[in-house]
Amino acid sequence: MPEASLPKGTRDFTPQVMRLRQQIIRAIIEEYELCGFQPIETPAMENLDTLQGKYGEEGDKLLFKVLNSGDFLASVQTPFPHDSALLLPQIASKGLRYDLTIPFARFVVQHRNEIQFPFRRYQIQPVWRADRPQKGRYREFWQCDADVIGTDSLIPELDLIQIYHRVFSKLNLVPYVLKINHRKLLESIAQMLGFGKHFKEFTVIIDKLDKIGWQAVHTELLQFETYDTSALESFLTKSPLNRGILEQLRARLNNDDMGEKALNDLTFIVNGLEQLQLPVSIELDLSLARGLDYYTGCIFEAIIPDSGIGSVSGGGRYDDLTGIFGLENVSGVGISFGIDRLYDILVQRSSHGAQERSPVQILICHLDEASQMAAVKIGAELRTHGIPTEVYPELRKLKKQMDYANKCCIPYVGVIGSEEISLQKVRLKDMASGGQQLLSINELISQLRTVG
Amino acid sequence: MPEASLPKGTRDFTPQVMRLRQQIIRAIIEEYELCGFQPIETPAMENLDTLQGKYGEEGDKLLFKVLNSGDFLASVQTPFPHDSALLLPQIASKGLRYDLTIPFARFVVQHRNEIQFPFRRYQIQPVWRADRPQKGRYREFWQCDADVIGTDSLIPELDLIQIYHRVFSKLNLVPYVLKINHRKLLESIAQMLGFGKHFKEFTVIIDKLDKIGWQAVHTELLQFETYDTSALESFLTKSPLNRGILEQLRARLNNDDMGEKALNDLTFIVNGLEQLQLPVSIELDLSLARGLDYYTGCIFEAIIPDSGIGSVSGGGRYDDLTGIFGLENVSGVGISFGIDRLYDILVQRSSHGAQERSPVQILICHLDEASQMAAVKIGAELRTHGIPTEVYPELRKLKKQMDYANKCCIPYVGVIGSEEISLQKVRLKDMASGGQQLLSINELISQLRTVG
Repeated sequence: MPEASLPKGTRDFTPQVMRLRQQIIRAIIEEYELCGFQPIETPAMENLDTLQGKYGEEGDKLLFKVLNSGDFLASVQTPFPHDSALLLPQIASKGLRYDLTIPFARFVVQHRNEIQFPFRRYQIQPVWRADRPQKGRYREFWQCDADVIGTDSLIPELDLIQIYHRVFSKLNLVPYVLKINHRKLLESIAQMLGFGKHFKEFTVIIDKLDKIGWQAVHTELLQFETYDTSALESFLTKSPLNRGILEQLRARLNNDDMGEKALNDLTFIVNGLEQLQLPVSIELDLSLARGLDYYTGCIFEAIIPDSGIGSVSGGGRYDDLTGIFGLENVSGVGISFGIDRLYDILVQRSSHGAQERSPVQILICHLDEASQMAAVKIGAELRTHGIPTEVYPELRKLKKQMDYANKCCIPYVGVIGSEEISLQKVRLKDMASGGQQLLSINELISQLRTVG
Repeated sequence: MPEASLPKGTRDFTPQVMRLRQQIIRAIIEEYELCGFQPIETPAMENLDTLQGKYGEEGDKLLFKVLNSGDFLASVQTPFPHDSALLLPQIASKGLRYDLTIPFARFVVQHRNEIQFPFRRYQIQPVWRADRPQKGRYREFWQCDADVIGTDSLIPELDLIQIYHRVFSKLNLVPYVLKINHRKLLESIAQMLGFGKHFKEFTVIIDKLDKIGWQAVHTELLQFETYDTSALESFLTKSPLNRGILEQLRARLNNDDMGEKALNDLTFIVNGLEQLQLPVSIELDLSLARGLDYYTGCIFEAIIPDSGIGSVSGGGRYDDLTGIFGLENVSGVGISFGIDRLYDILVQRSSHGAQERSPVQILICHLDEASQMAAVKIGAELRTHGIPTEVYPELRKLKKQMDYANKCCIPYVGVIGSEEISLQKVRLKDMASGGQQLLSINELISQLRTVG
């Protein structure tokens, strides 16, 4: 007999967990939709050649691959490769999506004649990674992305900052830290320090600064170039994003196009936030690099301080994401919230872990077989009036029925027996106060509507 | 360069498709929740031993299997099996869920100490089957299940019939045909005709009656037993479910426990529907068997006549589904709607295929660079008042911006230029009528709220 268990790193969501998850998702969707983002969905499985090579070597390893159906060895060519890497492409052509960004790029190219650019989409679906499971890291987890594609205007960046502010405020995750950086600023600095040819490695290493510290960063960088370490340290600081810091950087950078473009973009954002009078403070963190190669402009990361959990959201601008599928020169920008991490923080913080009131408003109980059908009828009547109602299905002692209501945290119970039937009434019991009332069905409906 | 394409039998959902799908899903959820069902979710991947052997031999073939991560050949034992069936268990231990019923049974057993019985859950998630794709049949499709588990009362059956009626009414899928049968009625008939030992085969064959006709049914059955064909034909008829037909059956059946139980159950349902005065007509179709072995009581199937699409929902009672995971004697009943089929029928039937109004209510356009930030500010203001708003991100001619609004079916456009800024007004254009008004921001908000 199979044990009732799950693959490691995967989870079930009980109704109680679902309630808070849905609350988080609704809060995000509401803000996305206010800004004109519209939902799409893509399949769990993508062709492996859509996914492979997009997430670095490590990413390729973490992809879940789906075996070809049927007799999957039938088409393997001889000599039979007894090597996983050689056999793999012959027995698996599909994989589970690793994020929502690459499937989105594929979607945009595939549907480019059906959609209007600039195209704003949001997408909330699970992704899968064969990572080692640990606290806050799962093999199936949910991303919640919004992207605007088909414009290099910075107005979408302002939209996304507004979304951050409104989502975190709504979820009571204040204060939050919103970090910003610009990949072209990093490129300019890398070039200045002699890492022009190793920009990719440069970003991967400095992105680890908060985790591994300066000494380790220097050691790793020195493998590629000897460079002025104190210059790097003085660049990679954190400070509030404002005109002053941008002017300081302008004075220190070589007068190259990349640095210029980055500082102009960041100045636009500073101006925009001033005009919008948003009470948002943004941290310019020059060590923020975001691992993924495809970012080319502003990059974002959001952190909830003291949560003990890394970033809850990240994103940025990419100038040529769809190029990998043959549609060149389409710029876009997007962010992604990690639902699972937001959930974990909210549970940590609040009383959300406590048993909550059931969404079911009333349980109809019955005292004997003769009353059971009357209970069913009252249940049906309440539902037509929009009141979520359960009818206890079994013939049991009233105490047993009440116990069930109690354990499920259903706030009201309606009792029907021969006496109630002859009076054409229902006995309503408030489970919290213990108070009882004898009500007609119409009185019951208006009472439940008032408190519902 | 990888082509932008999808694995066969899988689909993207564009915003337009999502809108109607979400409308269908919301209609079903609303009814599920009114009846006290609460949401759960389970992971896409289950352990293969949870899934295998539960859906028949054919089902095992149609399971998508996920390759073990990393060097999956490393632990294969010598001699190396060059045979798919022998190699499979050594390189794959997970599969994609095939339906929501087996994962639900696993969930109930695994969480039995956290949930209250009778437990009512709904679950709306995709499932995957390596079936040959064809019209209305996909390799990734959505199921939308509701089950009550932990009671053998027939009140849940009455709840589910009410849900059918309310969901189809709400989706304007009237008339619908709701078929009912009882597995124990079939068992009694099978026994009477000599198929007692071949009940499983008997049900699989008669279930195909509508597709293959009497002649083929007889031929297939005769492979197992010689039997009275005219008796079978006279049993397996369709008629409205009412007291008369149940009395006729009672007279014709052997007086066995199974037939007795079935007729009592169906009589309870007839009584219940009478009491509820539901305008539902149910067809008692004795050739309805539902393929799956685990059904033991009432079984259901819903069909939309003239849709050209098979059943859009099915379900039934099972007495021991959780037994496969070690929790015996827990009876339950459930139904499942096929979202993809409901969607296909609604698109066929109505104008849903036509381009619909965008959920975005207004596009803010700007005449020059100086007006752009004013447009961003007005956009932010409208959003704080709950009005879904897009700000056109690029500096383009007004005609180009209007074209975008038109193609996206956004009903209103707000225009900002130097004149509007100096007057502190916005020019509102109704895209349908072409009418224009010069409005203050407050007038704009109240106007959009009225029409929104």
